[in-house]
Amino acid sequence: MNVLKVGVVGTGAIGREHIERITNKLIGAKVTAVTDINEANAAKAAAICGARVEKDSAAVVNAADVDAVLVCSWGPAHAASVLQAIAAGKPVFCEKPLATTADDCKKIVDAEVAGGKHLVQVGFMRRYDKGYLQMKKIIDSGEMGAPLLVHCAHRNASVDKSYDTPMAVNDTAVHEIDVLHWLINDEYVSAQVIIGKSTKHTHSKLKDPQFIILRTKGGITIDIEIFVNCKFGYDIQCEVCCEEGVIRMPEPSFPTLRKDKYRSVYIEQDWRWRFADAYDVEVQDWINSAIKGEVKGPTAWDGYMVAVTSDALVQSQQTGQTVPIAAGERPEFYNTRL
Amino acid sequence: MNVLKVGVVGTGAIGREHIERITNKLIGAKVTAVTDINEANAAKAAAICGARVEKDSAAVVNAADVDAVLVCSWGPAHAASVLQAIAAGKPVFCEKPLATTADDCKKIVDAEVAGGKHLVQVGFMRRYDKGYLQMKKIIDSGEMGAPLLVHCAHRNASVDKSYDTPMAVNDTAVHEIDVLHWLINDEYVSAQVIIGKSTKHTHSKLKDPQFIILRTKGGITIDIEIFVNCKFGYDIQCEVCCEEGVIRMPEPSFPTLRKDKYRSVYIEQDWRWRFADAYDVEVQDWINSAIKGEVKGPTAWDGYMVAVTSDALVQSQQTGQTVPIAAGERPEFYNTRL
Amino acid sequence: MNVLKVGVVGTGAIGREHIERITNKLIGAKVTAVTDINEANAAKAAAICGARVEKDSAAVVNAADVDAVLVCSWGPAHAASVLQAIAAGKPVFCEKPLATTADDCKKIVDAEVAGGKHLVQVGFMRRYDKGYLQMKKIIDSGEMGAPLLVHCAHRNASVDKSYDTPMAVNDTAVHEIDVLHWLINDEYVSAQVIIGKSTKHTHSKLKDPQFIILRTKGGITIDIEIFVNCKFGYDIQCEVCCEEGVIRMPEPSFPTLRKDKYRSVYIEQDWRWRFADAYDVEVQDWINSAIKGEVKGPTAWDGYMVAVTSDALVQSQQTGQTVPIAAGERPEFYNTRL
Amino acid sequence: MNVLKVGVVGTGAIGREHIERITNKLIGAKVTAVTDINEANAAKAAAICGARVEKDSAAVVNAADVDAVLVCSWGPAHAASVLQAIAAGKPVFCEKPLATTADDCKKIVDAEVAGGKHLVQVGFMRRYDKGYLQMKKIIDSGEMGAPLLVHCAHRNASVDKSYDTPMAVNDTAVHEIDVLHWLINDEYVSAQVIIGKSTKHTHSKLKDPQFIILRTKGGITIDIEIFVNCKFGYDIQCEVCCEEGVIRMPEPSFPTLRKDKYRSVYIEQDWRWRFADAYDVEVQDWINSAIKGEVKGPTAWDGYMVAVTSDALVQSQQTGQTVPIAAGERPEFYNTRL
Repeated sequence: MNVLKVGVVGTGAIGREHIERITNKLIGAKVTAVTDINEANAAKAAAICGARVEKDSAAVVNAADVDAVLVCSWGPAHAASVLQAIAAGKPVFCEKPLATTADDCKKIVDAEVAGGKHLVQVGFMRRYDKGYLQMKKIIDSGEMGAPLLVHCAHRNASVDKSYDTPMAVNDTAVHEIDVLHWLINDEYVSAQVIIGKSTKHTHSKLKDPQFIILRTKGGITIDIEIFVNCKFGYDIQCEVCCEEGVIRMPEPSFPTLRKDKYRSVYIEQDWRWRFADAYDVEVQDWINSAIKGEVKGPTAWDGYMVAVTSDALVQSQQTGQTVPIAAGERPEFYNTRL
Repeated sequence: MNVLKVGVVGTGAIGREHIERITNKLIGAKVTAVTDINEANAAKAAAICGARVEKDSAAVVNAADVDAVLVCSWGPAHAASVLQAIAAGKPVFCEKPLATTADDCKKIVDAEVAGGKHLVQVGFMRRYDKGYLQMKKIIDSGEMGAPLLVHCAHRNASVDKSYDTPMAVNDTAVHEIDVLHWLINDEYVSAQVIIGKSTKHTHSKLKDPQFIILRTKGGITIDIEIFVNCKFGYDIQCEVCCEEGVIRMPEPSFPTLRKDKYRSVYIEQDWRWRFADAYDVEVQDWINSAIKGEVKGPTAWDGYMVAVTSDALVQSQQTGQTVPIAAGERPEFYNTRL
Repeated sequence: MNVLKVGVVGTGAIGREHIERITNKLIGAKVTAVTDINEANAAKAAAICGARVEKDSAAVVNAADVDAVLVCSWGPAHAASVLQAIAAGKPVFCEKPLATTADDCKKIVDAEVAGGKHLVQVGFMRRYDKGYLQMKKIIDSGEMGAPLLVHCAHRNASVDKSYDTPMAVNDTAVHEIDVLHWLINDEYVSAQVIIGKSTKHTHSKLKDPQFIILRTKGGITIDIEIFVNCKFGYDIQCEVCCEEGVIRMPEPSFPTLRKDKYRSVYIEQDWRWRFADAYDVEVQDWINSAIKGEVKGPTAWDGYMVAVTSDALVQSQQTGQTVPIAAGERPEFYNTRL
Repeated sequence: MNVLKVGVVGTGAIGREHIERITNKLIGAKVTAVTDINEANAAKAAAICGARVEKDSAAVVNAADVDAVLVCSWGPAHAASVLQAIAAGKPVFCEKPLATTADDCKKIVDAEVAGGKHLVQVGFMRRYDKGYLQMKKIIDSGEMGAPLLVHCAHRNASVDKSYDTPMAVNDTAVHEIDVLHWLINDEYVSAQVIIGKSTKHTHSKLKDPQFIILRTKGGITIDIEIFVNCKFGYDIQCEVCCEEGVIRMPEPSFPTLRKDKYRSVYIEQDWRWRFADAYDVEVQDWINSAIKGEVKGPTAWDGYMVAVTSDALVQSQQTGQTVPIAAGERPEFYNTRL
């Protein structure tokens, strides 16, 4: 059996988690080379998997014993590594965001299209979550008719003071932005953020909650509550209202307790646990595809589209106005990979 | 419109509740005469509704301005009042139990049958509870096929020290005994009580929980958990397993809260609240029927059958053995009123 | 005991329902006089309750044996009857809407304020629904902190071709408009309707679904899905997101069935059933209050505020723009009756 | 990293599934040798994983390149292979049952104890199911107090005509028998089966449903509904009633649909899907433990105890009487591995 040799760029928390996942949990791959701007960090990560430390991203990407690249550096460094991988013709999995500006995302799209070969997968793990997959299967079956409205909530128990108003879009809503258009097979045309009263549990630099409205080409209206100091837990809600009925995503599975005057079910407290399985399925799928010379999941175009949509939402955070989303036409190249 | 003139025998807690219900909540009746062994008590109750106090049960039952009788005295006094009402040819609603011995119940049955007129309704309110009625409608529709098994729980937050082991049958399971055979249109043939480890929250005279098994003529097996120190609330569960599927009674209706790491729903704490609506519907139905010269609901035969079944269960509490239930054949007289 | 003598103006479907309710179900009132533009109709209604037919609204309102008035005529006739009742100093319950224009509502407010006596209750029954009352109790307790967001859905299985786009506001959302500001103790300041793709089950004069956004003085953002051809049933959802947690209204109570590969619960199909209990409680509360010389429930000001808000929403249906709601300052007179 | 070399005895359906699992899904092991009484079958299985076919169980167990043995042959052949593995001092995972008679199970227990080394794991996968593990964690935390009652249901959509009355115990209840005593940390002392009316969907050789009662040393009463022609799906229910409250196992996770007058959730149809994750976790845990020279999960003693309990239940199927379970004292040897 072929074993995929993986190079990892960036060995912070998420990078190390992926290295451990590949080494101890998934099959078909091993990490052969790693790099990080913090050398000690890189060495520690290399020790987990018996890999060697390279001096920089280019060295990892171009190493002879690296078949595929995992980009887990900080956001501003993503574009360079992804472009190196495209240049080297190697499959590359890039943690979200694809790049920190729409322009950089567009450069990646252009490079991949110019290269003529599908290489890039962006790390939006929700497409691999069981609940979303169950919903998509039902929607795509057509039995519920066309989707008309989508109601979502993305709630987090609390955030620290480094988390500010734009991050409600760029760090939090970004997951809904990617997963929803995939779920309903549509594209966004406008974005609006309504900001009202904030919870007393937030701080001066963060308006919380925020209420996002996205509208699509096909006429679907999507609303998303972003509430990152909701206190009670990590809570992802998604309901799609269709012509024949309504589909609601299941709650995470815990025993029902009858105790102290209430019938209650635990709410997951941390997104890491909520999407733990999705991360495993996502990376395993990337490995399996790479071995076959394929790439699946969110494309560079999806990453670009998320960037453009996020920009529109951040603009609307300041004005409250509806902002058009002008991502341009999706290149023909990406139509073959939906 | 005819107003039904009601005489009330016994003005303790439940008696006074019924007087208030008839006076301030239901329509078509007024209380004209009351009596109680405690005269002060009777006077207080009479003041609620502008009734007069009579010296005893016979005086109430036979008063010219009493059309129908409500018996709410303590258990051992029930039989005498009910027999007086039968003798007077007046409709009588008797709070449970119909009588404290199977023999006394049988005397009432015999008197009613001899009189040839349906007059007695026993106060088992669950047959008027919305959830049981919804289940019965589904069962009787036949869409689920024949019932095969019934799983029940009757849980109470706590009881005081006057509540002992036999009361788990006579005061608690008694409600299931009445409602279940009605629900599944069958009759009990044997009874078993399994008593294991008791909760630390009980006291020396009460084995708690107890696990009851009733089997029916038609071959249905019923299990009932009786647990009266369950701590968390008043909780009635009923699930009927049929040939085509399973029916489960709804939980009482309260908002869902997401708070403090749990998604939770309040559990009703007191049986008075749990069956408050059922009491209203029950007594209104009795009034409406009495005005039309009819009587519905649990019959004297049902009251007798409950007594016989309870006796078998109390016997089994001591031995753990299965005890046959020999209620005899239901008189033809009662077949016309199911 | 005092019996409230009620005059009924308008004996169409809802008028007749209220007459039957008062006559056969509630206590403390009887209908003594009725009127309707259709005389045969009035006679039929009078027969239900043994009332006499009067020639018009004024005759009913001013009859010596009428203590209180129930206005159930068609919308455009409401204002005249309500103003007559105010002039006569008699309590008046007016089915929604209070009047068909904001101006007429304002005239009623002014007349009531000028009269100096609280007389008007508008027939928004949801404030008497158990689920909303349970939610309000929790919100008002303060245990969940301040409300920040409200998510609602008002779904109806289907409507006929006489139902058009503005009716989504005036006939449907009108219930949320009344109940929500009461629920969260706040007032609306702006209204927006987003209309996207319509279901294939609608007709040419009705955009369906519609997505409504209301914002309040206190900064709460409310969204309401109005979907009147949802196919599957009558479905009212309400979720209030607060600083300490989220409260969701309970679903109507039906048994859980396990059958044919699904675990399922019936959905109420008709609004009449969904709010049957609320209607009873509402009219009983009106009777009880009138007997004591009081009036509770939605005020004329609430009726006016609903009219102004509805106007803003209908305007937004055409432009998609956010429309300010300028109801003016609530008269001091109404502050004493919340 | 060490790769565990696994020999597989028996390459029927479950054997092949385990081979595929080890080869394509789990990490740390590879199958090196297989055998089956059907040689063609063995060859096909060997092709999946690149193993070689051996002529019989002894040859597999004793092969130099076999570190650990997986026994998936038919039941009557289990004991011989397990005893060979014990003799060879190699870890052995034996699919349930450990052996088809209590005597054979006892021989295995004696051999393992005599050998003085823990080697045997029996393939009861429910101990690795997320729901049971969540329940056990809560029970073991002590927060719910001591368990008092356990209510279970094991329902299956339908079985074919080869499935007869004893199989309700030996093939179906056997899973509850293993998992429940582990869940509540107790041992069975008596067994009873109540058989009443059968569903019309069963056949002449199968009484269905059956109602099982197990009682434990600690005084816990367990009831288990076994219903293998329930029509609607594969449905496992488990509720543990404790001194401070009640714990109920979660339902499998699927979206909630509102459609056709019902709010509904899909029920898993096949046990393979219901416990798919548990099988993976189970075998991975066995591999991980074997690499470290350890063995976890259900012991040979557990396998023996299941056999003795099953025998008592099958006996009770015929008489309806309560049958004592006399498994004898658990050897000290097994107390160190709970």
